Amino acid sequence: MGCKCRDSRAFVFWCIVLSSLIHVSLGSKSRHFKWEVEYMYSTPDCLEHVVMGINGQFPGPTIRAKAGDTIVVELTNKLHTEGVVIHWHGIRQHGTPWADGTASISQCAINPGETFVYRFKVDRPGTYFYHGHYGMQRSAGLYGSLIVDVADGKKEPFHYDGEFNLLLSDWWHRDVHEQEVSLSSKPFRWIGEPQSLLINGRGQFNCSLAAKFSSNASVSQCKFRGNEQCAPQILHVDPKKTYRLRLASTTALASLNLAVGGHKMVVVEADGNYVQPFAVDDLDIYSGESYSVLLRTDQLPSRNYWISVGVRGREPKTPQGLTILNYIPTSASKLPTSPPPVTPRWDDYNHSKAFTKSIFALMGSPQPPRTHDRRIILLNTQNRINGFTKWSINNISLALPPTPYLGSIKFGLNYAFDQRQPPDNYDNSYDIMNPPVNPNSTHGNGVYTIKFNTSVDVILQNANALANNVSEIHPWHLHGHDFWVLGYGEGKFKEEDEQNFNLKNPPFRNTAVIFPYGWTALRFVADNPGVWAFHCHIEPHLHMGMGVVFAEGVHRVGKIPRAALACGLTGNKLN
Amino acid sequence: MGCKCRDSRAFVFWCIVLSSLIHVSLGSKSRHFKWEVEYMYSTPDCLEHVVMGINGQFPGPTIRAKAGDTIVVELTNKLHTEGVVIHWHGIRQHGTPWADGTASISQCAINPGETFVYRFKVDRPGTYFYHGHYGMQRSAGLYGSLIVDVADGKKEPFHYDGEFNLLLSDWWHRDVHEQEVSLSSKPFRWIGEPQSLLINGRGQFNCSLAAKFSSNASVSQCKFRGNEQCAPQILHVDPKKTYRLRLASTTALASLNLAVGGHKMVVVEADGNYVQPFAVDDLDIYSGESYSVLLRTDQLPSRNYWISVGVRGREPKTPQGLTILNYIPTSASKLPTSPPPVTPRWDDYNHSKAFTKSIFALMGSPQPPRTHDRRIILLNTQNRINGFTKWSINNISLALPPTPYLGSIKFGLNYAFDQRQPPDNYDNSYDIMNPPVNPNSTHGNGVYTIKFNTSVDVILQNANALANNVSEIHPWHLHGHDFWVLGYGEGKFKEEDEQNFNLKNPPFRNTAVIFPYGWTALRFVADNPGVWAFHCHIEPHLHMGMGVVFAEGVHRVGKIPRAALACGLTGNKLN
Repeated sequence: MGCKCRDSRAFVFWCIVLSSLIHVSLGSKSRHFKWEVEYMYSTPDCLEHVVMGINGQFPGPTIRAKAGDTIVVELTNKLHTEGVVIHWHGIRQHGTPWADGTASISQCAINPGETFVYRFKVDRPGTYFYHGHYGMQRSAGLYGSLIVDVADGKKEPFHYDGEFNLLLSDWWHRDVHEQEVSLSSKPFRWIGEPQSLLINGRGQFNCSLAAKFSSNASVSQCKFRGNEQCAPQILHVDPKKTYRLRLASTTALASLNLAVGGHKMVVVEADGNYVQPFAVDDLDIYSGESYSVLLRTDQLPSRNYWISVGVRGREPKTPQGLTILNYIPTSASKLPTSPPPVTPRWDDYNHSKAFTKSIFALMGSPQPPRTHDRRIILLNTQNRINGFTKWSINNISLALPPTPYLGSIKFGLNYAFDQRQPPDNYDNSYDIMNPPVNPNSTHGNGVYTIKFNTSVDVILQNANALANNVSEIHPWHLHGHDFWVLGYGEGKFKEEDEQNFNLKNPPFRNTAVIFPYGWTALRFVADNPGVWAFHCHIEPHLHMGMGVVFAEGVHRVGKIPRAALACGLTGNKLN
Repeated sequence: MGCKCRDSRAFVFWCIVLSSLIHVSLGSKSRHFKWEVEYMYSTPDCLEHVVMGINGQFPGPTIRAKAGDTIVVELTNKLHTEGVVIHWHGIRQHGTPWADGTASISQCAINPGETFVYRFKVDRPGTYFYHGHYGMQRSAGLYGSLIVDVADGKKEPFHYDGEFNLLLSDWWHRDVHEQEVSLSSKPFRWIGEPQSLLINGRGQFNCSLAAKFSSNASVSQCKFRGNEQCAPQILHVDPKKTYRLRLASTTALASLNLAVGGHKMVVVEADGNYVQPFAVDDLDIYSGESYSVLLRTDQLPSRNYWISVGVRGREPKTPQGLTILNYIPTSASKLPTSPPPVTPRWDDYNHSKAFTKSIFALMGSPQPPRTHDRRIILLNTQNRINGFTKWSINNISLALPPTPYLGSIKFGLNYAFDQRQPPDNYDNSYDIMNPPVNPNSTHGNGVYTIKFNTSVDVILQNANALANNVSEIHPWHLHGHDFWVLGYGEGKFKEEDEQNFNLKNPPFRNTAVIFPYGWTALRFVADNPGVWAFHCHIEPHLHMGMGVVFAEGVHRVGKIPRAALACGLTGNKLN
């Protein structure tokens, strides 16, 4: 990203557009894929279960492209009764908002038997992924990796000799349809913690790779011939080299921490943006985030090392996900001699905050506007509606409409959703440190209409949930944009906190957490005509209403493909 | 039905129309229902499971109407990612083919969050039911009863003092999404026999009402306070009275036999048509069928009696479904002193055939045309397609298209489905007594186009399945019509068998079985403009392709509601 885009938002925008055009001229190409989504039997954690797969694969196929390429995915829905969409997480979809893959927002769900063509440009190198964005189909296993390399003739700002891609997820034994019923029950029934953590779709529920280190003598040692679906994907490395680990978390629920026994990691990328390199012993990764870390194979080559993934932020009831870093020519079957790295205590939030606050944009990254044109403060609360447990934002629990917003706004179908905008703030007397005095909330599907090309601050304000002394971590993900993370704070956000915003080198990302009882300040430029979800990336939380919708410059949106509109009120308008 | 409609088909038709009009003038009315379909927790067989319910009820609410009434059901889909439709089984939908509730045939599935209005006339008294007709949603629990009483001022041709309605179904513990995957797996995985049989949605898996009669000492006696979801619905009767039992089977798989300990039953209605009364000790009822029987409470009133339901036609691995006939004032909790009636042996087909062949239309019933204009012979075979196990008809396994036929034919969208008609016959050298020499088959979605107002014979020809010495019972159900069941035979149907057709008093029905290695001859008049499914009512068999589609007089179909067309290629045509 050689061009310096510091002066104005418009310049940033055109700079990106120009740089895309240049990439085209440098040999970027179209990459075509034909995918079929269907349920299939698989053994993600060594137990057989039905998963949602693509072309018979779980996780779905990895897309590998170069910056500037156009991705074309012809997606055929082979499910029997369910619609489907796929969201390309981290891809901003400039000029193709209908390809964002969010049901009820950017497109109609693809009906069984039908095919929808996703066609979009990947304008920037980075570590991305894709996943279902309808009901809880992500949790059902509909996800995969999307890796964008630098364009031909370009270089990454760091060196590495090889790379590995680790897509992290969590897995339940109860199927997602039952999970949905559970979450929608009165009285509420929580789905519980995941049974397993998966690394590239592989975990071990009924055995452990590290049984001999377990305090539980009844845990048996996993024995694999190696071709089992649930056998770990071992990372074979040469000594004295530098490897790039691409990490992405598509968990439904779990906040994770990853460590490599005996090795430090240097963080160099977050959500497709370069960061100032910094070394860590372990790294937190929340659902919706991606990182690249560099790992130097500088340890004793006669041994192998654990790669471990454990749960943060919720009292963990799920065993660590494990795999092995294997130094060639040491046998891959030789187990490490010491136990897997201990995951930091789940409620050691200082550890989490220290990591999160160590992330700064690499010099030369896009810089935020100095000021905001609008500030939206979003209070995150857990609520009740008619006895059902929900999450609400400024006391509105998002219930998506059957007609996707992109079409209904573009065509002025004012009756398609609530025309009142949700509030930009909440009652300042609200006590975020305690359960809500009045937990009642309402369903809503109104939209924040953002003036095109303006600078928007979003302050995510956390609060106490329904139970005493509970405030959870929520990773918020913005579609269609990256935002600058200007700061984090404890307690209630106050206007004077703005003075401490980092306008110099804030990380540029698409996902950011709010910590318990804290706030997180984001800024983005509304430069992408379309309608965009902004939501907690914990799938059950979104299912329970934890999101909002931003619309910007919809009148500038080009011709929406008919297939994206073929439902609800826009379906009626087609001719 | 006082009018005698014997002379011509047209007269039959107008007679029905006129009789409907007369009903209107006699005070028929519209009956409105607002229904929401959603998954919910329930305990159908005392174990908790997710079922598909309506307005929080499983089975769905019973509709009760009078002949000539118009039923209006505003059906809202509250599922999260699945479409839904409801078929009104046995209702012929004259003039409203778009309300037949068959996805891919009569209408587009209703998308999540959307509402479709079913509006149709119930022109004839009888015992009907409704159920899902998309994927395997019937098996998921989407069903209920539809009872049509005689119009005001009319009388049934038999007397009874009271009535009970028993809707029979079978129940699996594996959810239907997994069942669908199972059936679509290579190698094939059969879903197995149901875990429980349900009477009005109630069964007992983990205990038995008749434990003390069980040969298995580990079976425990059910204990109910009475308000349990799975407690049997007890039939409280007065001595020396006559009761009408309305029976309908919406099983996914099981052929059933029902008996009432110590009581004979007199069959008076089949599939909404009166039959010549005949007495039985027990009665076979196949999926898709309904009966009314009269039961005289002429036994010792100091005792109670079992009502038992057991499996026929497949080696049963499912306990009997049970409830109790309770003679008032005997305590309902007093168990019968003898064991429940023994269900006839599953493979005693002579018993089944004797019952089936005892059914004749009541005098005055509509009579069949003397001749046929077209004869379609449908060979039922089990096949393989690319290693997947399927059922085929004349070597075509039905794979429904995304665009419903009713719209695509009406609007001449010739690319919406295979324009070649499936064959009217099969290679006469085919050996029905053995597994197919070449089991390969093909998928297809062509349609039998039937000339309007012609008389059509359908000969259902059974055959050996893929395994040696296996030929199964298949209950075939026709939408939009009743047919006359002209005869049954063993082995391969031959033209000379026509000489033995019963043209005098054949039963007029919507469902008829083929017995193993046999044939069944049906005749119907194609007098109902629309597109109509004709299929094996065993849901997994239909899922595996066991059906055909008839189209007749589609150019005469009135204005199809927009919502029925809002998908696929007809969605694109809307304006």
